[in-house]
Amino acid sequence: MSNSDQASFSVKGIAQQLGLEFRGDGNRPIHSVASLASATETDLCFLQSLNYLDQLQHSHCVAVIVPVDFDADSGDKSLIFAKNPHLAFVRAIHLLLPHHESEPSVHASAQLDPSVKLGQNVSIGANCVIGEGVSIADNVRIAAGCIIEQGCRIGPDTRLHAGVTLCHDVVLGADVIIQPGVVIGADGFGLVHEQGEWLKIPHLGSVRIGDKVEIGANTTIDRGALDDTVIGHGVKLDNLIQVAHNVQIGDNTAIAACVGIAGSAIIGRNCKISGAAGILGHLTIADDVTITAKSLVTKSIEKSGTYSSGTPLMENRQWHRNNARYKSLDKLAKIVTSLEKKL
Amino acid sequence: MSNSDQASFSVKGIAQQLGLEFRGDGNRPIHSVASLASATETDLCFLQSLNYLDQLQHSHCVAVIVPVDFDADSGDKSLIFAKNPHLAFVRAIHLLLPHHESEPSVHASAQLDPSVKLGQNVSIGANCVIGEGVSIADNVRIAAGCIIEQGCRIGPDTRLHAGVTLCHDVVLGADVIIQPGVVIGADGFGLVHEQGEWLKIPHLGSVRIGDKVEIGANTTIDRGALDDTVIGHGVKLDNLIQVAHNVQIGDNTAIAACVGIAGSAIIGRNCKISGAAGILGHLTIADDVTITAKSLVTKSIEKSGTYSSGTPLMENRQWHRNNARYKSLDKLAKIVTSLEKKL
Amino acid sequence: MSNSDQASFSVKGIAQQLGLEFRGDGNRPIHSVASLASATETDLCFLQSLNYLDQLQHSHCVAVIVPVDFDADSGDKSLIFAKNPHLAFVRAIHLLLPHHESEPSVHASAQLDPSVKLGQNVSIGANCVIGEGVSIADNVRIAAGCIIEQGCRIGPDTRLHAGVTLCHDVVLGADVIIQPGVVIGADGFGLVHEQGEWLKIPHLGSVRIGDKVEIGANTTIDRGALDDTVIGHGVKLDNLIQVAHNVQIGDNTAIAACVGIAGSAIIGRNCKISGAAGILGHLTIADDVTITAKSLVTKSIEKSGTYSSGTPLMENRQWHRNNARYKSLDKLAKIVTSLEKKL
Repeated sequence: MSNSDQASFSVKGIAQQLGLEFRGDGNRPIHSVASLASATETDLCFLQSLNYLDQLQHSHCVAVIVPVDFDADSGDKSLIFAKNPHLAFVRAIHLLLPHHESEPSVHASAQLDPSVKLGQNVSIGANCVIGEGVSIADNVRIAAGCIIEQGCRIGPDTRLHAGVTLCHDVVLGADVIIQPGVVIGADGFGLVHEQGEWLKIPHLGSVRIGDKVEIGANTTIDRGALDDTVIGHGVKLDNLIQVAHNVQIGDNTAIAACVGIAGSAIIGRNCKISGAAGILGHLTIADDVTITAKSLVTKSIEKSGTYSSGTPLMENRQWHRNNARYKSLDKLAKIVTSLEKKL
Repeated sequence: MSNSDQASFSVKGIAQQLGLEFRGDGNRPIHSVASLASATETDLCFLQSLNYLDQLQHSHCVAVIVPVDFDADSGDKSLIFAKNPHLAFVRAIHLLLPHHESEPSVHASAQLDPSVKLGQNVSIGANCVIGEGVSIADNVRIAAGCIIEQGCRIGPDTRLHAGVTLCHDVVLGADVIIQPGVVIGADGFGLVHEQGEWLKIPHLGSVRIGDKVEIGANTTIDRGALDDTVIGHGVKLDNLIQVAHNVQIGDNTAIAACVGIAGSAIIGRNCKISGAAGILGHLTIADDVTITAKSLVTKSIEKSGTYSSGTPLMENRQWHRNNARYKSLDKLAKIVTSLEKKL
Repeated sequence: MSNSDQASFSVKGIAQQLGLEFRGDGNRPIHSVASLASATETDLCFLQSLNYLDQLQHSHCVAVIVPVDFDADSGDKSLIFAKNPHLAFVRAIHLLLPHHESEPSVHASAQLDPSVKLGQNVSIGANCVIGEGVSIADNVRIAAGCIIEQGCRIGPDTRLHAGVTLCHDVVLGADVIIQPGVVIGADGFGLVHEQGEWLKIPHLGSVRIGDKVEIGANTTIDRGALDDTVIGHGVKLDNLIQVAHNVQIGDNTAIAACVGIAGSAIIGRNCKISGAAGILGHLTIADDVTITAKSLVTKSIEKSGTYSSGTPLMENRQWHRNNARYKSLDKLAKIVTSLEKKL
């Protein structure tokens, strides 16, 4: 980063830009941001919860964004008050460390079919391969080694990081971010039995990704069998997630890493699916549902709320003893019922 | 697709080609296929189960392939009767939308070692890298960005989609399909302890993949330590599956996404392993075993059947209460036993 | 492999080189190694446990490395005695099959920014893309199709297999091995809510990988939000593992495939995390902790030991019955308590 990439503000200047109140010395300079633990004397930090109060008190930062009701001792640090300190901190990052893109360019080694349509200010990295009839809108940046097969359409301001594969006819919206190694549009796992062998079902659908979607590294999203697999606007997917054919994910749903979603599942809006959860196929999940980590959803969820499965972590010996009992839990319950009747 | 890619049939013509009975107007034209929900008036659909009867009744399709005992009202749609409607539908797709491959060609940017042996009608995409002594049989199609290391052998009619990596000396059978991002033949996770540190075990085996195998996006299959990892004929693997070193998978077994199989596990034929299941190492699973989603197989299974582990999904508060009890399930069982004795 | 890659020893010669005792004919030649089941008459094998005694007795090998207290009948095979037969066997492999690297070279198709600093004896494969300011130390070997973004630093003797992606400013130590398809340094899954939508948190940290680390195929390690994600020396990661932003993993910890580790988790040294385990974020795991397969760690573990969660595999009908009871386990426990009081 050249110096011109980094802005400089006073405590007061930052607070004003963010529209927030501050307390303490407003004139001290802020050059950058850091975590409480590694901050130096010109860094801005944030405190999301009082669990980290001890870190705040030992921090070398000049100023901290704190919750509006913050009232603890913070030494001589300047305080900036925000309803959501983390959100205010992200905005401060954009002020202090504005992101400058390099000049758009198409690398000489990229292999573009002559029919590819390129918008304004498009960047395409080394060794990309872009197939027949692909259309790429303005301000799209595609990093090295991406493969974009025939017929794909990519909306404006979308960014593909290195080594992304879009199979034929995949459609990405505007402002989408795809992390490295993602595969979108591979054939789904569609099979029918034919005399003891599996026959492959042709996949005639595609994948449609909405605007402002982010997809994490090495995640896979399969194309639909007949209709499309559809990812709504504002959906955020973490790494190593499997989205099977014909899944639909509603707007602004966030899904953490290692989740698997089976075919034709329909997930509502504003859901939060925690890491390594599993969702069986051909079911529906309502809006505003939270699934906790490693839970398995085996049937439709019709009501907003938080749902869980799984058992608690135990010391291994205790776990073995309880597990042995679990195998005969039904018997145990029957004994209790018969004891109840006797009394 | 040019028009010549699309055939046109009457209802009667399709039924005759598939060797099936039909009912209703046999002369109406069928141009394509679709799901019941999105079909238009020249589309063929199928109905696998009466759960979708409502969709059928609202569909705009011209004809539907239904089970032989189908007897419900379907308006004026023509009906074609099949034992397995989905299977008949897949055959109809092949009739209506025959797949035409592009002309075989080796892209100018592909890096082939001079010793590579190419069969007839082989296609190799842009930026592929193919190492010393690799042998590629007739009609193989390799999409862009694949890396095939020295000594690999690829059987006839096999297809590698974009960005596949075959490490050295991997052997693929005939008619295999590999989806993007798959890695076959990386070193297994073989370690021995040496004075508190881990020493890597050299991996001298390879991976052998049978005929008619399909492998889903970003799945990984490790090479064997001494002997080979072996995937039988007709095996179907979904996305993001881990197959560890020296695993053996029997013919026609199908494994859904996110499954992990540990080293030296031996899995029988015609098994169905559901999504996110785990299989520990050095165990054997019999033929015709079904494992339900997210189950963990911790010891050998000697008898065909369906096996499961895990607990049901619950509303979060109920789950917390039950989980608290699970931690002392063994105690609870002991109390019940002592109560029984008292009575 | 040319003949010169393969050394030849007598039984006595191998035993002497390894500093081990032997019994039987010391003059018989050993040319290679194999598993007990596939060995031929000039192969060396090892026996780690008496579970494989039957295989040993049927093996055609010339010699076997066995535990020091081995006392069973082994026919006329020569025996070499070792405290840890597997470790001795690995050393024997390095004697018998020494690994010869090909001559270092930078492939003509590799795209290196002019500012890249290359050490001595560096190999860079076809179609690699290496960005501005990257520094690569002596004896590094980078296979085909790797993408190394600006500012990365790679320590001596490190090996990147095919198709690895290092995002900007990632730091790898010495003697690191990265298997194909790995993505290091993608943005973490950091989001804050802003008026019902998710706002992306910029990721200003990076990833630092220690010496002697190995990382398995298609594993992902995200960069930190403010501070770095840190992988200690001697850490071994299997395939398809997710390591989220700001995770810290202590020296010599080994983690099996399909594990997911959420953001800011701190894992101690010498831990063993089995396959498909999950570790929630913002918690700490002590040194020398073992987590069994598919367990979920939901809070900090302060004491060394073995921990588990999950339920045993059951025949599917039995599982359904027990699961139905699990939903009312809390009620069952309350009934037992009231029965106890009555008696």
